[in-house]
Amino acid sequence: MTFAATILTLYPEMFPGPLGQSLAGRALSEGRWSCDPVQIRDFATDKHRSVDDTPAGGGAGMVLRADVIASAVDHALDSQPEAPILAMTPRGNPLTQERVRALAAGPGVTILCGRFEGFDERIFEGRPIEPVSIGDYVLSGGESAAIVLLDACIRLLPGVMGAASSGDDESFETGLLEYPHYTRPVEWEGRTIPEVLRSGDHAKIAAWRKRQAEIDTRLRRPDLWERHEGARVKSPSGAHDKKKER
Amino acid sequence: MTFAATILTLYPEMFPGPLGQSLAGRALSEGRWSCDPVQIRDFATDKHRSVDDTPAGGGAGMVLRADVIASAVDHALDSQPEAPILAMTPRGNPLTQERVRALAAGPGVTILCGRFEGFDERIFEGRPIEPVSIGDYVLSGGESAAIVLLDACIRLLPGVMGAASSGDDESFETGLLEYPHYTRPVEWEGRTIPEVLRSGDHAKIAAWRKRQAEIDTRLRRPDLWERHEGARVKSPSGAHDKKKER
Repeated sequence: MTFAATILTLYPEMFPGPLGQSLAGRALSEGRWSCDPVQIRDFATDKHRSVDDTPAGGGAGMVLRADVIASAVDHALDSQPEAPILAMTPRGNPLTQERVRALAAGPGVTILCGRFEGFDERIFEGRPIEPVSIGDYVLSGGESAAIVLLDACIRLLPGVMGAASSGDDESFETGLLEYPHYTRPVEWEGRTIPEVLRSGDHAKIAAWRKRQAEIDTRLRRPDLWERHEGARVKSPSGAHDKKKER
Repeated sequence: MTFAATILTLYPEMFPGPLGQSLAGRALSEGRWSCDPVQIRDFATDKHRSVDDTPAGGGAGMVLRADVIASAVDHALDSQPEAPILAMTPRGNPLTQERVRALAAGPGVTILCGRFEGFDERIFEGRPIEPVSIGDYVLSGGESAAIVLLDACIRLLPGVMGAASSGDDESFETGLLEYPHYTRPVEWEGRTIPEVLRSGDHAKIAAWRKRQAEIDTRLRRPDLWERHEGARVKSPSGAHDKKKER
């Protein structure tokens, strides 16, 4: 089955862009996903093909018109009714690895790329569009965010990474950051690979990696660690008194 | 002054990619930033030009070698000693708009793009490299993350967005999501632009927008809202008794 990506954008020539190379590029040429950029401007109705207008209430910049965006979205809905529609915007729900996994398991995705000051808010009431944010920073448009979202999905498609790297061990899959990696040379500038990793004792190595993942998550991402501990306390397998720990 | 971007990557042909078009592309051709992708493989020392090896302790995938990466980083340090070096990795510090602003105000940035299972951890001890994550999901490599980081910086460079949109009003700049936008047509599918935005009363419009930004942040991003409220409580201008609020 082909994962169908439809991208509604004012810059269709940005796609597949970096997704045309390496892992995603190979998967594209093997037909594991398809890339269909659609020019939003083709859905404009006036002779100037305008897609935006000044913000109601004043202010800098331009806002993408609800009527034009709706026509583009309806076109995507017609051609791929079962794919979820995501709009890339800093006002959206933060993208998570869990959401990426769910998308990758589905038929594809339609991605609406914002530009300028963003979308007329009514589009989110008038059409089934989920606003999604890839992080707490502002981009010049949704296109690079769409590339990130697609890259995250594509690598999880069947056959893309190969059986060996299922991704189960990775950052966020266990609610933790991934453990640190090391490789040859054993000694580099006086720094050696931790001895346990050279021990050949698989149980010890697994325990060390788990502990390192916990330490690093705790230190670097107290927010993730708290969520992880919260989930552990709630789940029956990890049941224990939270208050006592504190 | 030109913002100098050096990208250490196994896929230099991915750059400038989407950054060669639209706002960033125009800024590139105007010399407001420069794009210098560097092939990491050129710093390999064996006849196979290998850059990676199997993970110490076992496991799937390959790990980028500390010695090869160090040579590439040293090359970047030689040619641009004052630019900070960031490595794109899901184990990194979450990218924020504040960090983007600081980077954009500097001389440029050197970005190290991971691939495979990531970097030999010793590189972070042996060289002044800051690990940075653009979000809690896993990509096939650091390249699309580098494009996002650069796009966020480039739009803030002097002259790129123009004086009218300084970006001060945007999401995250005030610690909140941005307020919703509306534009013509006034009525679309029975939905009208909120009346206050058509009132012409600038004080009322500003108050409405502030309130909407607060409501949306509270509903959509309780994490941001809590941080925002925490900062307000700590700052002298917003001093009031935190306990009483709870």
